Amino acid sequence: MTRLLLLGAGRSATSLIQYLLRHATTENWFLTVADVNPAHLVPVLAAHTEHAHAVSFDIQNSVHLEELVAQADVVVSMLPAQFHAPVARVCVQHRRHLVTASYVSPEIKALEEEAQAAGVTVLMECGLDPGLDHMSAMTVIERIRSQGGHITSFHSYCGGLLAPDSEGDNPWKYKFTWNPRNVVMAGQGTAKYLENGHSRFIPYQRLFAHPTPVEVPGYGTFEGYANRDSLSYRAPYGLQDIPTILRGTLRRSGYCAAWDALVRLGLTDDSGSLGNPSDMTWRELIEAYLPVALPRATTETELAMRFADYLGLHFTGPEMQRLQWLGLFSDQAVNHADATPAQLLERLLTKKWQLAPNDHDMIVMQHLFNYELGGKRHHLTASLVVLGDDATHTAMAKTVGLPVGMAVRRLVRGEITQRGVIIPTHASLYEPILTELATDYDIRFVEEEAAL
Amino acid sequence: MTRLLLLGAGRSATSLIQYLLRHATTENWFLTVADVNPAHLVPVLAAHTEHAHAVSFDIQNSVHLEELVAQADVVVSMLPAQFHAPVARVCVQHRRHLVTASYVSPEIKALEEEAQAAGVTVLMECGLDPGLDHMSAMTVIERIRSQGGHITSFHSYCGGLLAPDSEGDNPWKYKFTWNPRNVVMAGQGTAKYLENGHSRFIPYQRLFAHPTPVEVPGYGTFEGYANRDSLSYRAPYGLQDIPTILRGTLRRSGYCAAWDALVRLGLTDDSGSLGNPSDMTWRELIEAYLPVALPRATTETELAMRFADYLGLHFTGPEMQRLQWLGLFSDQAVNHADATPAQLLERLLTKKWQLAPNDHDMIVMQHLFNYELGGKRHHLTASLVVLGDDATHTAMAKTVGLPVGMAVRRLVRGEITQRGVIIPTHASLYEPILTELATDYDIRFVEEEAAL
Repeated sequence: MTRLLLLGAGRSATSLIQYLLRHATTENWFLTVADVNPAHLVPVLAAHTEHAHAVSFDIQNSVHLEELVAQADVVVSMLPAQFHAPVARVCVQHRRHLVTASYVSPEIKALEEEAQAAGVTVLMECGLDPGLDHMSAMTVIERIRSQGGHITSFHSYCGGLLAPDSEGDNPWKYKFTWNPRNVVMAGQGTAKYLENGHSRFIPYQRLFAHPTPVEVPGYGTFEGYANRDSLSYRAPYGLQDIPTILRGTLRRSGYCAAWDALVRLGLTDDSGSLGNPSDMTWRELIEAYLPVALPRATTETELAMRFADYLGLHFTGPEMQRLQWLGLFSDQAVNHADATPAQLLERLLTKKWQLAPNDHDMIVMQHLFNYELGGKRHHLTASLVVLGDDATHTAMAKTVGLPVGMAVRRLVRGEITQRGVIIPTHASLYEPILTELATDYDIRFVEEEAAL
Repeated sequence: MTRLLLLGAGRSATSLIQYLLRHATTENWFLTVADVNPAHLVPVLAAHTEHAHAVSFDIQNSVHLEELVAQADVVVSMLPAQFHAPVARVCVQHRRHLVTASYVSPEIKALEEEAQAAGVTVLMECGLDPGLDHMSAMTVIERIRSQGGHITSFHSYCGGLLAPDSEGDNPWKYKFTWNPRNVVMAGQGTAKYLENGHSRFIPYQRLFAHPTPVEVPGYGTFEGYANRDSLSYRAPYGLQDIPTILRGTLRRSGYCAAWDALVRLGLTDDSGSLGNPSDMTWRELIEAYLPVALPRATTETELAMRFADYLGLHFTGPEMQRLQWLGLFSDQAVNHADATPAQLLERLLTKKWQLAPNDHDMIVMQHLFNYELGGKRHHLTASLVVLGDDATHTAMAKTVGLPVGMAVRRLVRGEITQRGVIIPTHASLYEPILTELATDYDIRFVEEEAAL
């Protein structure tokens, strides 16, 4: 019997647990799920007591961590990313393989030599983004290369969104399907990418002003804004000399223009508290950012008109419609004393953007390649759309958890022989996972190709 | 003999050391100057070997710190602000008084009870800003109060600038007279202040767009932008219910509009590196922020015209004049690989804004009060201008160091009886210092008063 240890069983782990339980009998696994609050796991594991149990676990308890790792053969961590480094160190010490869906941090990278020496696989970036993005991009890149083609441009977008049937009257067509704070803080800094061999920089305050339209067959138009660092993908993809590369985040059309208004007003700043009372209203908060008007705005509509005027928006336009729908100009209290603007905005959004139990989320990923082959220029688009089943079995949980689970299965079977700190950019690693996703879960990329 | 210990003898300590040496004989002091690099102190202390010596000191060496503090009667710290907390803890343990020119940090505030119990004075915020600002503002506030007046509005500005005779052809009329990094990063976050009883917030990206004109008699027009937190001055000044309070930073007119262009382009961001090579030119860097133009700009003038167009500036206007003078569009290399935009900007500015040996700096401070007295509304302005002697004996060094030195003298004489963590907001503390500054150094505020 192989003993698996899963650390962290939050919202994004539901599909992973399902996958591991589904294969536990045939693969002869025993799964230990260690979570800070394992009560919610009781019904999930009830029918699988011969193959799984849950334990209470606090990542701060390093003695317990060592104990659990020592008793396992393979470890999976779905803990928040900052906890992967201590977990990885214990895994390498105890010669246990580790799989996660998070980026290789400098601390993890520093374990490379030790992991190699110990014969341990630390497989990182094996979820959705990072994860499926690597696997699917490398599939195309390797194919073009094997044909003798030369890639001249690579754009890649990913977004965790709301399925069309769950958009309802929400004009943003967006709800939180992962960490709300990360959504509020998204893009802070300077985005860097390459265009025709030239560096391109976009400062945060301009990031949402000019999104790129992105068409996804069957799902209409989206828009993408640049991620902070598109350059770091060149080396792992073997695209060191590519003249154009951009990675971006997808939203439904119109989201960015409305979000840009929140950025421009200053509501995404998280660097210091406003010293506000808890019963300050949203109307008072917004008023405090606008130029002083005498008499001060007295109705929600008057304030909204001054806000639109200040930011150069049409009062009846789509941006104002989205902002009014949030209650930005309403008399509701901010309900959080001495908070940063970003904290207040997150609280407001959480009210309006919370996934309802029957909502379906949607993952969209698209890669766009230009390449030269046989003296001709080609364009290739690879698109993925995954819909969630409900607010528990989300598309996010499936696309993050299933590749992790499949990697674990292959690792236990001895089908992954790379050791050290690795990411799934090698065909031997990603091909079986993409095949299983397509065959068993209908999660597959659709390609379109055209001559230019 | 009283043993004084000065920790840190950087640029802002020159006038303080001069003051302490000047009084060492009559007051019977022996001064130990502890600095990480004491070589530059040899000529300064040469004529005072009976009353002073320098020692090599590294703040990381806590054993040496304890030793030095134990041997002293009164300690002065001019170290960078983050080192004051460990110094203060040692001072309280050894029952030694401490004087600094830095803000009371939460760590220092936490020592209050212990300092009280030990009978120790930890006198913080005793330089220029914080320091002279408290002393001079409280002088006016206490006088108006004692007359039965009621303060309705308080604006206060301070700036470390360039004396008019040293402006030369520098269109910014500005050079670095303190930490360049702090100047580049100034204002990041959200500025908060009060106006007519209402909260006012200004996000960073708007901070330099609308500075307030500030007139200083005999020195012409300046402009002020709001500091991050004007609200925290209410409690220590006894102005809890004041409807209007704003603290700001002064620059020469026109500075803010040109700086605003740098902020809007994104050059003050410090949150992540650009991945740039060291030989990237400023022209290439600026080009990377502008919308793509084909053909790309080839001359400095063409790039500057595109930049002006992008930011809505007049090509021949004062903002562009300042930016071109910096070399923002030139072919010089940025000379710093993989740097943040703010690091590159600081490097460029340091070349152009370095104080020459014969330059004179200038400190300007102005308080503006509105108050009601006897049924009438009054306006009072208190202004201070201090000129530097040269690039060593700067106005900055005088106004930061002399109040500290004077406080030390009074502390040693037993004329300061307050214990615990204090700042100079009590008349018994600030009156003698302001008198000595005026009498011996001609550093005095000029008041103008008018009925409204």
